Formats: sequence, structure tokens, C-alpha cells
Amino acid sequence: MVHLERVRLNRDWAESDDFIVGRALDSDLAVKMKDRGKTVRWHLDAERGVATPEKPGEHLTKYSVPLRPMLGCVAVAPNVAQAAPGTGDSGRYGGNMDFNEIVEGATVYLPVSVPGALLYVGDGHAMQGDGELNGNALETSMDVEFTVDVIPGKRIMGPRVESATHIMTMGLDGSLDDAFRGATANMAQWLTEEYKLTPSEVAQVLGTSSEYKVSEVADRNAGIVLKINKERLKSLASAGK
Amino acid sequence: MVHLERVRLNRDWAESDDFIVGRALDSDLAVKMKDRGKTVRWHLDAERGVATPEKPGEHLTKYSVPLRPMLGCVAVAPNVAQAAPGTGDSGRYGGNMDFNEIVEGATVYLPVSVPGALLYVGDGHAMQGDGELNGNALETSMDVEFTVDVIPGKRIMGPRVESATHIMTMGLDGSLDDAFRGATANMAQWLTEEYKLTPSEVAQVLGTSSEYKVSEVADRNAGIVLKINKERLKSLASAGK
Amino acid sequence: MVHLERVRLNRDWAESDDFIVGRALDSDLAVKMKDRGKTVRWHLDAERGVATPEKPGEHLTKYSVPLRPMLGCVAVAPNVAQAAPGTGDSGRYGGNMDFNEIVEGATVYLPVSVPGALLYVGDGHAMQGDGELNGNALETSMDVEFTVDVIPGKRIMGPRVESATHIMTMGLDGSLDDAFRGATANMAQWLTEEYKLTPSEVAQVLGTSSEYKVSEVADRNAGIVLKINKERLKSLASAGK
Amino acid sequence: MVHLERVRLNRDWAESDDFIVGRALDSDLAVKMKDRGKTVRWHLDAERGVATPEKPGEHLTKYSVPLRPMLGCVAVAPNVAQAAPGTGDSGRYGGNMDFNEIVEGATVYLPVSVPGALLYVGDGHAMQGDGELNGNALETSMDVEFTVDVIPGKRIMGPRVESATHIMTMGLDGSLDDAFRGATANMAQWLTEEYKLTPSEVAQVLGTSSEYKVSEVADRNAGIVLKINKERLKSLASAGK
Repeated sequence: MVHLERVRLNRDWAESDDFIVGRALDSDLAVKMKDRGKTVRWHLDAERGVATPEKPGEHLTKYSVPLRPMLGCVAVAPNVAQAAPGTGDSGRYGGNMDFNEIVEGATVYLPVSVPGALLYVGDGHAMQGDGELNGNALETSMDVEFTVDVIPGKRIMGPRVESATHIMTMGLDGSLDDAFRGATANMAQWLTEEYKLTPSEVAQVLGTSSEYKVSEVADRNAGIVLKINKERLKSLASAGK
Repeated sequence: MVHLERVRLNRDWAESDDFIVGRALDSDLAVKMKDRGKTVRWHLDAERGVATPEKPGEHLTKYSVPLRPMLGCVAVAPNVAQAAPGTGDSGRYGGNMDFNEIVEGATVYLPVSVPGALLYVGDGHAMQGDGELNGNALETSMDVEFTVDVIPGKRIMGPRVESATHIMTMGLDGSLDDAFRGATANMAQWLTEEYKLTPSEVAQVLGTSSEYKVSEVADRNAGIVLKINKERLKSLASAGK
Repeated sequence: MVHLERVRLNRDWAESDDFIVGRALDSDLAVKMKDRGKTVRWHLDAERGVATPEKPGEHLTKYSVPLRPMLGCVAVAPNVAQAAPGTGDSGRYGGNMDFNEIVEGATVYLPVSVPGALLYVGDGHAMQGDGELNGNALETSMDVEFTVDVIPGKRIMGPRVESATHIMTMGLDGSLDDAFRGATANMAQWLTEEYKLTPSEVAQVLGTSSEYKVSEVADRNAGIVLKINKERLKSLASAGK
Repeated sequence: MVHLERVRLNRDWAESDDFIVGRALDSDLAVKMKDRGKTVRWHLDAERGVATPEKPGEHLTKYSVPLRPMLGCVAVAPNVAQAAPGTGDSGRYGGNMDFNEIVEGATVYLPVSVPGALLYVGDGHAMQGDGELNGNALETSMDVEFTVDVIPGKRIMGPRVESATHIMTMGLDGSLDDAFRGATANMAQWLTEEYKLTPSEVAQVLGTSSEYKVSEVADRNAGIVLKINKERLKSLASAGK
């Protein structure tokens, strides 16, 4: 597990673009977006906590978005039988997940597959909408501090993230449909192993407490995140004892 | 447009089950869930604002979920060239959308396709997790009051919902991937027509302000919702003037 | 089961178009095809057995395609709990399947769900490429003769087709991925019930004898067909006795 | 381009298994197949030209399949900006395509992306059903002879294969739906560049001459192949001159 102690901006600008990735386009929107793809530079105002486009179009002159610095990439090495993944790839080992809740204070759980784990982090985003529709978020530079712990003897199906309020499982796969199945199975495993729920109880908790969001559609794998509020889990933990 | 003035529970129990629908199952989870499907009855405590299973399993004895009454179905008639859709279907005309933000206070926008629109509402859920993974939510009875307005001369690609804080577009299609494209194109249309954004501006706003969630995977169509916070939109509206 | 005794053209022209449906388009091809959609009229030459465009473009002046008259629609009524499907829809009950091997000599198996079955046939195509990419095939008029038999006590997961050489199962669903699962499960059921194969044997036969083709992507459901050559099946039938 | 001069078996056995991969399973079939996965050894009888399971189950005692030796893998190196792909991966550069028409006599076209191209071939299959549903085909050893030619100045979107009778384009992607789009766009590029067809003509030819099959669903990418009979193309080539 990697706990992000500090994820802070260290410069006052970021670059993005005005493209929309193919996975988000139907035929009509593809036609409308066909000439897009120019670089867009954003000013990062750490004091006000907002980003604004440096040369906004007519309708964006007052547009600003809250800064929420995050890491697009957190990964360990996959097991040695696999080829080393590219930096744009993702999977059970983490990778280029581009999930906008991997922020200061979050903990990322990844499976150790090789001696030393071979952790890396990177791909700082000053902020990012769900999906990372532009293919880039507000790409920038960052100061990062983190601590690493090893939890022995634990197996997980895919990346997991924990915040102050939620536990979250990621599904990363070649379609949103398969990523959805992955995130769900990953959470079912978590509820079964950590909270000792029976299959019937897993179904009831997932049916009433699931919050699904799309993390990204910009890289080879698409990502779906299943979140469960920790308030719901408190009652599970106490009940089983 | 249909504005939900009042969506209130009128009895103290709901029925759901402990099944998980096929779209959420990978092969392993399918094996684990193979014997599931029994009815689960929930007690609805309007005073405390929570639902609890009436005969909880060992680990769910203290489990409760907040009530959030919603309508699974809001629909008009599709255009007359189409067959009348079943009550489990959905599409541009609305239908069985099972989106848990169609609650008291929300406004649902649907295209009028036939004289009189032929609006119907139904499918009351005391609350529902994202995805409606059990195939059923906490199905119950409800008192509903709503007002209807007609906005002449307006065309929309698919259902839209507005809350106090967000505008939302729905994509409803045969896969999450296609629903994702639909929700995105629907919002691009909204930003283009109502806020006069250029394609480049649409891309920049979607890239930085999109919030995507999965509404449901339980019916013939899967649903993805794209939400944009109205705070972001205020600056757009004022800029263009 | 519906056996098509005779499926013959009765006029000398057909209409199609030069559009490509959205399910076949990536972003680049969508841009390239954006202005397409005009009607294309084809001359049907029954004597030579070919169709040719009446006003071909420069490169199609010598282009011709073999006639292979087929029925796009063969359907019974679904069970009464469902809404009556539109003529563009398909499912377990058959419907607008647009499969180019539903030709003279073929037998189509559909499940009887209501008294009288309520069979209908239609949507004559002089010929059709796999996928029905134009949204229309060479749409024309036809003389059709067929015989109907009832096989009591039999249940099938989805439509099946039998030719002189192959047995075929159809998967019809909201994505090609789900249609693929449906066609496979449908054939696994056939091999299990008719040929008494064990799950291990089903896997070995499917692994070595499956022929998959795409039937269509032009309607609400996409279709995948799994074909098995009857030569392979002869050995199965004789072995179990 | 890689022309396969000779692809011949050099031993009399192959190994496969009785598993079915997840992409082919719906929930019910997943339950039925849950205990499968044992190795199945096949005897290869080159003289009779068939393969038979060495220890067949009760219903497979007379089951045999025609030998059709093929190469599962033909690849060049992708461009240097990408990570080296694993041997189970595929893409524009070819790779583990598991397409059962890559046999003796076929020509495979791949884009040269690095100096020397860095071609490799492998993954000999004595035969394979469409889809490679078992995750393995009849895996065996082979003698292979091939010739390589370089076609300067040519760009292709993805792998292409040519046989005596057909030209074929492959789509390799994270879902069958996206692979279908890829195969179609790849063929549209071929018809546009080699046969000078206009978009309208491309649509008409694809609509009437497309033959789509599923190549495989066993690896990270699924594959769809679009085939066009060379008979249809002769008329195009002559018309444009």
C-alpha cells in the first residue's frame, strides 16, 4: 500500500488540449470534433485554488475549475511472466489509472508481484474531470511525499483506493462493460474476505451501497471505480464480532 | 419537462432480493452467485430515515441504508413509428431509467414525440445503489406530485435531469460503452445549444468538469449519466453575454 | 420450426443506400462517411444471377454481386409479459435478424411462446453482405413458401438455423460481445441436450469446430452466429449410441 | 509482407484443454464450465489429415477434426515509443492474432515501424476453431518457411492477410465491438487507397461484399476479420483504368 502524504503543485501552469478521445465519441460528435487537438495552456492559481485557461475562447473568459492535484500513475511491476507494460497501460498492478481521487491523503493498494515491488508514481494532474476526455488532464509538475507499507499474505484482484470517506475498487479493462465487471468482482472479494460477508450479504450490500463512477476512457484500458461509503461498512465490521 | 414536487414513501416496507444481474458478473462471481435470488424484505423507518433488512444475515444485523425515495420510471410515448416499448425498456423517450437522482426536487426533460406526450411515472424505489445490481431496488409504494411544462421548439438527444446542483445527461444503450458515448454527445449538445460553446470550448469544459456515474445495468439498456456542476456553468452563461 | 421451401425474387430491382451504420464506424470513418446516405437502386438480373447498381460510380461500372435471396425477418410473438417488439427488433423470438443464410432450403427454429405462435416473415433481401452495413440490404419483393412444424417439449435459448451443411445458433444482444456470449451458450445448450455432451466435451467440440460470423450490426441488437459443420456432428451422434 | 511458403507439422501430437475463456461465457455457461481446464492431448494423423483426442470422452470416440496448420503469432516490433508487447498481445504490429487463415500460402501484411522490422513468427496450431475458445488451440511444433518483401511508402491501419481467394483486414481491440470498427476502417482504407473508391463506393462495396468472422477472443485483444472475395475486386480494378 502507498499512502500519499503530500501531493502539491510546484509550478503555476499546466498543459492540456481540446481534443476528445474516440471512446467518448459517437458518429455525430466525431464529425463535430474532427479538427480539434490543439494544446491549451492553463494558469494554476494556488492561492485561489483554481485553474483558468490562459487564452480562453469567448465563452470561457470567466471559466475556472478547482485545483485538485492527483497522480495519474501509481504502479508496481507486474509478475515477471508478463512483458513490462508501457507507461500508458494499466491493470492489476495499477499503472496509468488516471483516477481523480488518487489525491493527497489517499491510500492505493497494489499487489506485490516481484521482489522489491518496483513501485513508481508519476503523471501529475493539477485536476482532471472524470474520464480524462481530452486524453490529457491539466498535466503539470508536482512535489510528492508518500509512505509505503507491505501487508503480507494478502491477495487482491485489482487496484484498490481508500480515502477518508470511502473504500474503492477499480476495474481496468478493454471496455467499460468489462471494467464494470472487474470493479464489482474486486469489491465482492473485499467484502467477502475483510468483512466475512456471505454471497447473499454481498449482493444486498452491493445493491444498496454501490457508487460507480467512470475513472477514465483515455488509455488502452477504460476504468470503472466502485465506491462504498465507510459509514455503511462500520455496521458490517461491528456486526460480525 | 416533469418537475417532481413530492416523492414520498407511503408504507413501511419494501421488497428487493439478493441476486446480482449478469452484466455485473465476471465468470468467478457468476459461480459464487449462482444460487442467489431469494426475496429480501426491508423495513422502512421514515422517522429515522433509514431502511433495514427485516431478517438480516449474521453480518448485516446492524446494516442500514439512508432512505432516498426515487422514481425508476419516467417516460413519454416514443414517436409513433416505433413499437410501444415495454415497461422495462428505456431510450430517448425516458422509460425505466432507474437513476437514483430522479428524486423529489429533480426535473426530468423528455422529448415530446406524440400529441399529448402520454407521460407516465412509476417504479417507486425507497432507495437504490448505483447500477441497481439486484435487478430490483427497494421496491415500494409512493405518493407523487409533479408539474409538467412544455418547452416549445426544443430538441434533445436523450433524457436530461436537473437538480439543485447539477445538470445531467443520460446515455441509455445496449452496452456501457455506447451509453457513455450517448451521455457525452447529449451533454455536448446541451453545452453547444444552451451555452453557445464552440467545439473547442465544449471539449475543454467536458475535460475539466465531467462527472460520470453508472445509473443502472439491470435492464435491457445500461445507463451512464454525465453530470456537470452548475457552479461551472454560471461562468459560461455570464461570459457569453 | 419454419422450413423455407422457396424464397424467390419477383421483381427486377432493389433499393439500398450508401450509408454505413454507426456501429461500424470509428471516429475517422465517421468523418469520411458524414455526407453519405443517398438511395442506391440495383438492377436484379435473375437470369445471370447477379445484381448491379443502376447508376454506378466511376469505379463500380463493372461491379456485380451474386443474388442470394433471403428473409431479414422471421419471428414468432414473444411471451405475453413482454411488450410487442417493433419490426426492427430481435431477440429470443427471432425478429429482424438480417442473417444472410436464412435462404431457400434453410430451417429456422424459434420458441413458441403464445398460443398459435403468431409467426410472421418478411424483409426480403435480394442479397446482403455480413453486417448489413448500409442499414439496408438490397431490399426487394419476394415469393415465399414455407412449411411449419411444431416440436413439442423443446426449449431453446435463442434462434437457431439449420442448412444442408451446418447447424447455427444466433446471439442477438446490445453489443457484439454479449451477442457472442449468447451464440456460444445457445450452441452449448444444443450440444448438451441433443448430443448429450458433457461440459468437457462441449468445450473440446466448440474449441475445434466453431465458425463464428457477424450477422448484422444495423439494428438495435447486433448479431453473432456460431456455425458447426454437420460432418463434425455425425461422429458425435453415432458415438453416443 | 510475409509470405508463408510452407507451414507443416513435424510431430504427431498437440496439446489443448477443455476450458472456455471468459469472453465466451455468459453467467449460466460460466457455472457449467467452472471445473474445466484439464489438458487434452490430441493425436495428429498427417496421412489422414485429421486430429483426434487421445483419450476421448464417451461421446467423442469418433470425433476428428481436419488438420489445418497455422501460425498464431506473426509480428514485427511496434514503434519504439511503445513498450515491447508481450507474446500474448496483439495490435497494429500483428502479434498473437490467432487467426486460423494464417496458413501455408497466405500473405500477412504488417507495418514496418523500426529499422529491420524485427519480424518474428511462432505459436504453431495444428488447427483452431474460430475464437480459440479453449484459450489454446491444438498447440504443436512446426516447420515453417517464408519469404519477406518490403513495400516502400505504404501505410496500413492494422494487420492484413491475403489468401488465394480473399483480401482480409483485421481489427484487434479490447472488445469485439471495437475490433469490428477497426476491421471495417482498415478495409475502407484498403479500398480507398488501392482501388481509389469514393466514400459512397466504399459503402456500397462493403455493404454487399463483406464477410466478417471472429478470429479470436482468447487473448487481451479480441479479433474480428473482414474478408472480401477477390472476384468482387477484379471488377473494381478493371473499372478504374
